[in-house]
Amino acid sequence: MSLTIKAHIAAHFNLNLRTAKQTKLTDYNVKIRPKPIYHSNQLIAFQPKMSAAVKSASSAIKSSLIEPDGGVLVDLVVPESERGLRTTEAESMPRVKLTKIDLEWVHVISEGWASPLRGFMRENEYLQSLHFNCLRMKDGSIVNMSLPIVLAIDDETKERIGSSTNVALLGPTGDLIGILRSIEIYKHNKEERIARTWGTTAAGLPYVEEVITPAGNWLVGGDLEVLKPIKYNDGLDHYRLSPQQLRKEFDNRQADAIFAFQLRNPIHNGHALLMNDTRRRLLEMGYKNPILLLHPLGGFTKADDVPLDVRMEQHSKVLEDGVLDPETTIVSIFPSPMHYAGPTEVQWHAKARINAGANFYIVGRDPAGMGHPTEKRDLYDPDHGKKVLSMALGLEKLNILPFRMRTFARSGENPPDGFMCPGGWKVLVQYYESLQAEEATQQPAILTS
Amino acid sequence: MSLTIKAHIAAHFNLNLRTAKQTKLTDYNVKIRPKPIYHSNQLIAFQPKMSAAVKSASSAIKSSLIEPDGGVLVDLVVPESERGLRTTEAESMPRVKLTKIDLEWVHVISEGWASPLRGFMRENEYLQSLHFNCLRMKDGSIVNMSLPIVLAIDDETKERIGSSTNVALLGPTGDLIGILRSIEIYKHNKEERIARTWGTTAAGLPYVEEVITPAGNWLVGGDLEVLKPIKYNDGLDHYRLSPQQLRKEFDNRQADAIFAFQLRNPIHNGHALLMNDTRRRLLEMGYKNPILLLHPLGGFTKADDVPLDVRMEQHSKVLEDGVLDPETTIVSIFPSPMHYAGPTEVQWHAKARINAGANFYIVGRDPAGMGHPTEKRDLYDPDHGKKVLSMALGLEKLNILPFRMRTFARSGENPPDGFMCPGGWKVLVQYYESLQAEEATQQPAILTS
Repeated sequence: MSLTIKAHIAAHFNLNLRTAKQTKLTDYNVKIRPKPIYHSNQLIAFQPKMSAAVKSASSAIKSSLIEPDGGVLVDLVVPESERGLRTTEAESMPRVKLTKIDLEWVHVISEGWASPLRGFMRENEYLQSLHFNCLRMKDGSIVNMSLPIVLAIDDETKERIGSSTNVALLGPTGDLIGILRSIEIYKHNKEERIARTWGTTAAGLPYVEEVITPAGNWLVGGDLEVLKPIKYNDGLDHYRLSPQQLRKEFDNRQADAIFAFQLRNPIHNGHALLMNDTRRRLLEMGYKNPILLLHPLGGFTKADDVPLDVRMEQHSKVLEDGVLDPETTIVSIFPSPMHYAGPTEVQWHAKARINAGANFYIVGRDPAGMGHPTEKRDLYDPDHGKKVLSMALGLEKLNILPFRMRTFARSGENPPDGFMCPGGWKVLVQYYESLQAEEATQQPAILTS
Repeated sequence: MSLTIKAHIAAHFNLNLRTAKQTKLTDYNVKIRPKPIYHSNQLIAFQPKMSAAVKSASSAIKSSLIEPDGGVLVDLVVPESERGLRTTEAESMPRVKLTKIDLEWVHVISEGWASPLRGFMRENEYLQSLHFNCLRMKDGSIVNMSLPIVLAIDDETKERIGSSTNVALLGPTGDLIGILRSIEIYKHNKEERIARTWGTTAAGLPYVEEVITPAGNWLVGGDLEVLKPIKYNDGLDHYRLSPQQLRKEFDNRQADAIFAFQLRNPIHNGHALLMNDTRRRLLEMGYKNPILLLHPLGGFTKADDVPLDVRMEQHSKVLEDGVLDPETTIVSIFPSPMHYAGPTEVQWHAKARINAGANFYIVGRDPAGMGHPTEKRDLYDPDHGKKVLSMALGLEKLNILPFRMRTFARSGENPPDGFMCPGGWKVLVQYYESLQAEEATQQPAILTS
């Protein structure tokens, strides 16, 4: 495997990052972790130690993290002092009700994962995303943007909006979430969106069936404002660190390389070996403190994927068992929903991690892939994800770390020796047993909203 | 309509263009126009006059034409002195037989319309084209490349090629056309190619039915060499000027702006008004000698489009009648086959004209569009072509001139007053009468190979 290291120190890093001295990690921990449910969460166990270590370090820590796309990390959460005013203002606006998955996208956009995107796409952004997997900025620079991040509305909602320029966004339970300003309504050509995003229009694509088919025939784009940070109250919110929080944590740990690993499955020991090996190689390359961002996807996943809470417990055991080193690993949830769009989606997975500070991205075989929904084959060539990612426009500053690994057969049998630590395996066995106990027709709940 | 004029003078224009003094236009005319069949062809009538004018001009003419993509205009025709050697060499290579439309692509690539592409795409180029509509060059610059330009082979041919690195290309009648070197064979995922190129997989797309569905399951990329310029011997070869020939002609005419008009239909007076108006506006902008490249597409078209020979005769009458000024117009055939892929294809149409020297491109409503093959609607939003073109990566140096014009109903009735000159109309009426006289089931012949 050959690596080319490109400059990853931002020339104009203009985030308002606080130094270690200014940041009280203990306060921070309390704030973002209201309901710790896993007693053995190594992230929790570890942070106080780091906090002490960081506090004794120089107060002149400066961030050398990779620059977010567009130069500034987008943060669309309204300051608390203005919340009342905006709420009053929103009450007079036409209302658009969000689905659970729309709300996941609001979460994603509001925290800057999609920087420089500042709201749901207007038509010009949508077309650039569909045709070029990129957006061109005003200064001529290009940022990657491979998935259309759009909000669909139906005819009735469109009529209700009429000529209003702003709309209020309501959550699935009717609570006010935010405002979309200077809106633009345009046609939602579902067939074209699906064909260009997935490279197929075959029936049975999970995101299409769950999100696009039932959606309205119009898209509404505009500038997003969110009244307060999005929370799910599912006992996992403490794992949902925003890009800004992750960047702070990386700076606090004085990381000089961040390598991100996207996953939506349990961690087996092959993964762990790979991640440990990656760290070793980064040290050999001269980095002093490479940190692993172990970043399970937390939004919509298809019914036969392992649910988020089970995965998080499994990940927790893996750190507890010491398979991954908690001192150099941060486990956090990536709030995006899953498209299963292979080479198109892996770009989004990588791009979002740049915004969280990662300058190395590990990519495996058939990333974001799945079986073809109607034919007996992989939907994507398993090598295309890696190839497309390595050539992707707007991701030049990211170092791609490809890997190959034997795929283990999915079966109920015991894993090969060394495949997974015993604690982690037990969590999975219990999950599958509980699944069998339920009705076979009942789908596993999606726990992300 | 607002225009932004960007620098169109190439910094490193390195074509070996001859000055006016070196070029004998009369010889040139004889060479490229072996069989003039339209006595009234204004291009022919006009050139001797220009020739005289140019001969009296300064010998210090330098080209200020827009730079071809990649900086150098690709020319893959083997020098005459090496033809024998290459022919002998090719005789020992495995053979790949080209279809008529493959041969059109060989023509396109060999003359540099697709510069900097030097052959049929290898997988890396194919993937970049599908996902980004662009190719990234070694120096980091980006060129537009929206259509996959690929050569399909079947299982049997793949087996016959075995581990050979070079193959000989045979034309549809079995004659040796050229060589493809350092080949790479990769999978032809037709569904994905179609979905990402057309934004639909609906049955009935003309290029798909004609070219892709019957094609093999493998693609072969490599570096192309063509033994001699591609000719069709259909009486229209004199209209098929290569990008290099067009550039020479523009320089001979001392053009300082070239505005290209792609068409695959008869010219009506609305078109003509538009083109004359464009020239007027370019003069107002300070250009001294804007030249119109009237550039009908000559490759594969769908059965209900007007055939090329009829169109060329109609265009000829339009110039004869003085609707367009022959002194500032060049009529030439663009050898590409038609995809009918709307916003994806219009980028190709524009990009190829950059390579021929055009720095202005006129784009109308629904360029390269058609009706949806299975639904009662346009396949593409009629405004998307123009929008996508204006945002397209790699086309920043091209000035896009959008226009809006009422669409005239297609019917057998007389055209509205001023719609088309009487001579041009007569050509069309005769064509449609001859069509009715034939069997309704018989498709019009495609005349391009």
